[in-house]
Amino acid sequence: MKKNVLIIGAGGVAQVVAHKCAQNSDVLGDIHIASRTVDKCRKIVESVREKKSLKTEVKLEAHALDALDIEATKALIEKTGVQIVINVGSAFVNMSVLQSCMDAGVAYMDTAIHEDPTKICETPPWYGNYEWKRAAECKEKGVTAILGVGFDPGVVNAYARLAKDEYFDKVTSVDIVDINAGSHGRWFSTNFDPEINFREFTGVVYSWQNGQWQTNQMFEVGQEFDLPVVGKQKAYMTGHDEVHSLSKNMDGADVRFWMGFGDHYINVFTVLKNLGLLSEKPVKTAEGLEVVPLKVVKAVLPDPSSLAPDYVGKTCIGDIVKGTKDGTEREVFIYNVADHKEAYEEVGSQGISYTAGVPPVAAAMLIATGEWDVKQMANVEELPPQPFLNLLNKIGLPTRIKDENGDRALTF
Amino acid sequence: MKKNVLIIGAGGVAQVVAHKCAQNSDVLGDIHIASRTVDKCRKIVESVREKKSLKTEVKLEAHALDALDIEATKALIEKTGVQIVINVGSAFVNMSVLQSCMDAGVAYMDTAIHEDPTKICETPPWYGNYEWKRAAECKEKGVTAILGVGFDPGVVNAYARLAKDEYFDKVTSVDIVDINAGSHGRWFSTNFDPEINFREFTGVVYSWQNGQWQTNQMFEVGQEFDLPVVGKQKAYMTGHDEVHSLSKNMDGADVRFWMGFGDHYINVFTVLKNLGLLSEKPVKTAEGLEVVPLKVVKAVLPDPSSLAPDYVGKTCIGDIVKGTKDGTEREVFIYNVADHKEAYEEVGSQGISYTAGVPPVAAAMLIATGEWDVKQMANVEELPPQPFLNLLNKIGLPTRIKDENGDRALTF
Repeated sequence: MKKNVLIIGAGGVAQVVAHKCAQNSDVLGDIHIASRTVDKCRKIVESVREKKSLKTEVKLEAHALDALDIEATKALIEKTGVQIVINVGSAFVNMSVLQSCMDAGVAYMDTAIHEDPTKICETPPWYGNYEWKRAAECKEKGVTAILGVGFDPGVVNAYARLAKDEYFDKVTSVDIVDINAGSHGRWFSTNFDPEINFREFTGVVYSWQNGQWQTNQMFEVGQEFDLPVVGKQKAYMTGHDEVHSLSKNMDGADVRFWMGFGDHYINVFTVLKNLGLLSEKPVKTAEGLEVVPLKVVKAVLPDPSSLAPDYVGKTCIGDIVKGTKDGTEREVFIYNVADHKEAYEEVGSQGISYTAGVPPVAAAMLIATGEWDVKQMANVEELPPQPFLNLLNKIGLPTRIKDENGDRALTF
Repeated sequence: MKKNVLIIGAGGVAQVVAHKCAQNSDVLGDIHIASRTVDKCRKIVESVREKKSLKTEVKLEAHALDALDIEATKALIEKTGVQIVINVGSAFVNMSVLQSCMDAGVAYMDTAIHEDPTKICETPPWYGNYEWKRAAECKEKGVTAILGVGFDPGVVNAYARLAKDEYFDKVTSVDIVDINAGSHGRWFSTNFDPEINFREFTGVVYSWQNGQWQTNQMFEVGQEFDLPVVGKQKAYMTGHDEVHSLSKNMDGADVRFWMGFGDHYINVFTVLKNLGLLSEKPVKTAEGLEVVPLKVVKAVLPDPSSLAPDYVGKTCIGDIVKGTKDGTEREVFIYNVADHKEAYEEVGSQGISYTAGVPPVAAAMLIATGEWDVKQMANVEELPPQPFLNLLNKIGLPTRIKDENGDRALTF
């Protein structure tokens, strides 16, 4: 039994994680929130208290922390006595937080792959460049480290594993589709940090097809999907974390990731990219000021966390899995639909933060109870999916399935 | 008889002015080029020498000058003994250069209206905010100051005056149409300084209609024109300098300005404007750096002067004038067609710089010969148009007319 949680990061996802930890404080124990800007942590603490989210009285504290500082992070872990670290900070801090957890002997989890701020789109599989290099050390130290346990990556990996185990003898393809059919009412905004959001789409698109990596350009391959609740939506093949672990764990099935984009988003993105405004390399103005264009774009765009109060509509994220069962070809769609407004009312964040923030709390609870406390590094599809999805059914992200037998809730 | 010319500015238009002055050095005498960056002036001097543009051996010299410094500008005027100043520097320096000329008692001309860097789109008539306030002082000192003597404003003002004098008893409307049907081969570029170019289109669009100022938004009013050589082209009502003087000088006729824009330009402009990237007000990046978004946009865009070698195609700029003559309604189109490649081969600049840079040289020659040395401030339509247009016929910008009698060259 592990207890007491340290949340690293204080953005929209951290807000959700804190609320959900609080709602399950009987299982998880104390909650500590740490970020470079302690004021942002304090605001989350206030929000949790305001919404009376704490199920049982536990410690709920804000801390200032530079998560790149391994010694400082270790010291905070030791001081607070936490046994589980949920890293939902910037993707740039993963490896230092993981190191701190391995050194301190506590469980680690994150929701996105590690990124080097100076590199865009490295060679696949991405996990091989950073995280997996530490797998042996994790195992040796008996440290549980669950990689990419947000929604996508995360829940969609569990969906893939479930399909492989339960619905197919042989899976031939997994197409993960992420549609945000919500509306924030602004002329344009990214749904999370523009710097990270745009970086996702400026590089090469990797997919795993016919047993090898295939490369495409962003917005080169698109198709319309007709999905439950959100209806017909255009999505484009995109590089994404989970493709890089599922390529290894789905017995050679094709793995593709598709993200929904409206024409308006694509147009704005294309203009900014072609003009060079998404570049992370500094340019010099006529007045001699050195400035990174992408950081200026970020400065003029709305703060994604400001969108939540006005966000309406739903997200639909899931796996279209194809393969054979008992000699017959079949197809299933395993998915979740989330609602922006409901998320905001419950935890003060919009639906995209909600879908990313609830799963790591479910994972933390499974570590707390021992079910997922595997004492090694694991991607989500390497863990039993049923307890995870079952818990998500209960705490806000119910799973549904659509196949030849209809569209129904999935319970275990 | 006035002689010896000081060119202020060292951009693409200054390059054309220098070459054209050199080609007419028998009339104009010495040529001095001054700009903050003396290296740019030296490059122009080299280009003039390389193309052997000097008709007669005169002084041809580069100078470093901050044209906002009135005393320094006066000192340079006195040291060089110039009697004519052609100001083709930034629109921000007009008033200080004009003051220097009035103090030194030499002729002044510019090609664009004065702008205050902190203000976008002031109240009409724009000349009334700055230039016309100095008209009395000009007259008192007997200083010739010709405002806006590029192509538009400039030649198009002379076209309007010519129409009023020669082709109509009463003019009811003047529609100035500026089409650049050329292609620079880049994904996107402005044709001159992006900072000035975008400022032109971010404010209110003023037109003079039914005896009063009418306001519209940019790209709100568009129509297709079918013009000689360049064919059918979509143009949009735009604010422009010449509307502000012609509103006073065309006996109450409607005066509108239309600029051709492709859908691509409009799209890029709209994205940048709506995101706030065309703002001249500083924003602060997450790292705390204060930066003016428009200056970053300028930094990532191609340097307009780099476009010239690859520029192909033609410009068509002219006045569609409607009114009555001998009791009958009629319409004439007085215009010029210029070719980007021919301009580059002759003077090393593209067609847009060429059309802007040749007219002030013609004006300088008319001041040199006395015909336009009016010893007061004047907009171009207040001066006799025939000698000006006749000279332009000879030095590179021939005038044509299209009316019920056909399409033909216009000579006097």
